[in-house]
Amino acid sequence: MSASPSRPARRGFARWLGETNEITRLFLAAGQIPDLINLAGGLPEPATFPVAELAELAGRAVAEHPGDALAYPPIEGLPALRDRIAERYASERLRLTRDNVLIVSGGMQGLDLLGKVLLDPGGLVAAQAPTYLGALDAWRPRAPRYRPFRPDRNDFDAEGALAGAQFAYCVPNFSNPTGRLVGTGTRRALVAAAETTGTWLVEDDPYGALHYDGEPLPRMIELAAVPGEAPYDGPVLYLGTLSKEIAPGLRIGWVIAAPGMIRALTLAKQGSDLASSGLGQRIALDALDSGLDRKVLPGILETYRRRRDALCAALAGQLADWFDWEVPVGGMFVWAVARDPALDTDRLLAAALEARVCVTPGSVFDPEGRDRRAIRLNFTLNDEARLAEGVRRLATALRALPA
Amino acid sequence: MSASPSRPARRGFARWLGETNEITRLFLAAGQIPDLINLAGGLPEPATFPVAELAELAGRAVAEHPGDALAYPPIEGLPALRDRIAERYASERLRLTRDNVLIVSGGMQGLDLLGKVLLDPGGLVAAQAPTYLGALDAWRPRAPRYRPFRPDRNDFDAEGALAGAQFAYCVPNFSNPTGRLVGTGTRRALVAAAETTGTWLVEDDPYGALHYDGEPLPRMIELAAVPGEAPYDGPVLYLGTLSKEIAPGLRIGWVIAAPGMIRALTLAKQGSDLASSGLGQRIALDALDSGLDRKVLPGILETYRRRRDALCAALAGQLADWFDWEVPVGGMFVWAVARDPALDTDRLLAAALEARVCVTPGSVFDPEGRDRRAIRLNFTLNDEARLAEGVRRLATALRALPA
Repeated sequence: MSASPSRPARRGFARWLGETNEITRLFLAAGQIPDLINLAGGLPEPATFPVAELAELAGRAVAEHPGDALAYPPIEGLPALRDRIAERYASERLRLTRDNVLIVSGGMQGLDLLGKVLLDPGGLVAAQAPTYLGALDAWRPRAPRYRPFRPDRNDFDAEGALAGAQFAYCVPNFSNPTGRLVGTGTRRALVAAAETTGTWLVEDDPYGALHYDGEPLPRMIELAAVPGEAPYDGPVLYLGTLSKEIAPGLRIGWVIAAPGMIRALTLAKQGSDLASSGLGQRIALDALDSGLDRKVLPGILETYRRRRDALCAALAGQLADWFDWEVPVGGMFVWAVARDPALDTDRLLAAALEARVCVTPGSVFDPEGRDRRAIRLNFTLNDEARLAEGVRRLATALRALPA
Repeated sequence: MSASPSRPARRGFARWLGETNEITRLFLAAGQIPDLINLAGGLPEPATFPVAELAELAGRAVAEHPGDALAYPPIEGLPALRDRIAERYASERLRLTRDNVLIVSGGMQGLDLLGKVLLDPGGLVAAQAPTYLGALDAWRPRAPRYRPFRPDRNDFDAEGALAGAQFAYCVPNFSNPTGRLVGTGTRRALVAAAETTGTWLVEDDPYGALHYDGEPLPRMIELAAVPGEAPYDGPVLYLGTLSKEIAPGLRIGWVIAAPGMIRALTLAKQGSDLASSGLGQRIALDALDSGLDRKVLPGILETYRRRRDALCAALAGQLADWFDWEVPVGGMFVWAVARDPALDTDRLLAAALEARVCVTPGSVFDPEGRDRRAIRLNFTLNDEARLAEGVRRLATALRALPA
């Protein structure tokens, strides 16, 4: 049976949906491949979720705080959770109140909202390159122009990078996709450039807690604080999330920014989902109050550090002839760049799927889709044996590629 | 202490945020008024929430289904919940599968996503007038043009209303704000016009279950189904939600539409919040499977029917000289239209707040803000005594208005 042939054509979709994406289609098809080893996503290991503690918190959230958990929450989020987040990030220098905090439905919603608030059609975004795919997805309906910047270059000019842009987007801790840290000097330069150019500076920090070696570097929002200014009113918007530290299924994140920016983002949130899940917010509050995040973190770090080392050992054993990479000091990814500039990693993905392993090709992190020389490999979802087997399959795919 | 005077101006916000709104400011101020009686919102009575049942479902969702509740859910929603929703609305004529269903973070997100998918800047929306404020909020960042239509007029021309529009927006059951039903004949005419014009038809139905008198009318998506067509591939997008039937704090709603439309909305959702709360979805699934919605509905209907009657009795006793209204057969609102065309309900709101009662002025349901002759009164949140007192305060405000 099929639709009536007399039906006329329906109105088409908005223009941004017209851009076909072969890679997306390959990823969707990958879901159907049996025994696929997925090195492509950015998923946490479910065994790290504190299931028993969260089950108890969930039941108690509804039973003891039904007003918070079941009614429409305030658009900005539960006041006590906003206070808790303000307290978590505040310091002698960085003075925060709940007016600096918006609760969002995962970090992705923070990106969507700031696009709505800052981008008119054709607006200019200065984006750390390569750029997190999810940010490109979030802003696609606003059709921005992109100007990439590379903060890890020796000749990086922060003021030139930011000048004229509506905002600059940066993942300073273990960047998605490269896993690299932006150094403290460059962070200072970005903050200074935000001040002198008037460009907003977005500090997206989902991975900040996933630090395996060495000491954390100062947050840009901390560097942007003016001593004595209360509450904070600087140019940095900081995005955080519970997804990597406790569990992504709760969909709870936060934006910390100047109160005027929080008010604008709140208007955008009102028209996006009215408010984030009250139940999720109440669980997040009780989890943070009880120190559940601090309790589970050591186990997460131990698991992920071991897996990072296993992935890098497998790469050294199998792929050193084809790729170069750095061992990341944190985060979820290794970024491997082909030694042969002619190697096309979009084509490698197709061959990899034949060999039952999935990786993310570099092209999806480039607004123009032109960088086809790198792959992003995730090490948090699979155990050591699966990581090694995934890399073996990738080597098979590389050998099968036509020269 | 204040910000450093040397800071340059920061980049401004997107244009849609520049439209100032005095009414929004009044509403925000209302939150500070002690002992305010709120007849303005659209909030459910928290005493109707099945707290004990939901507390148990929440704890079990995490403990027994941690994969569903705590990991990243699929963008489209949990497959079992999509199946459950498809089953809920399917009939002999309307054949639905999970490919027809997208789970969203409350009905508001459905509106945001369809704006992203269907509206380029300046796109034309045919909107049932007066128009739900939240829909206007959701589409503001897409800067659409509006062409109002009035399906309750005798001379209503559905094809003329829809022709050339990207989509038509309608709340056929107990419209927000008017509380009116769109009749079955007009529903058929709208569906036929959607077919002949190619315009998508959005059936927003948050209140369908809140039916106090008479029998429910057929859904437009049911009328749009072609017998034998499986799965449904028609022009109607149906929006539903758990917010009015179980609890809004879960933030779970759904869109039912043609599979191609669901795929486009899924791409928009990926860049909006990645997925709706897995915990909320698992609770929704278990609540629907266990019949919790059917169990709580009779109590909700009894409470709201009594409150509707109390509000209308108070209006008849206090406001009949100033306003006309119809007793709604369902929903959450009474729409009262001033008998004197010179009565300005924006000004009435200011006087009402002085008298410690809040109502919604008609201007916010007009994209142009020009309709200042009506008010929307909610009867679900307050008990009978508070409703009567609220109407007394409103009469005081009316008497205090300068002629």
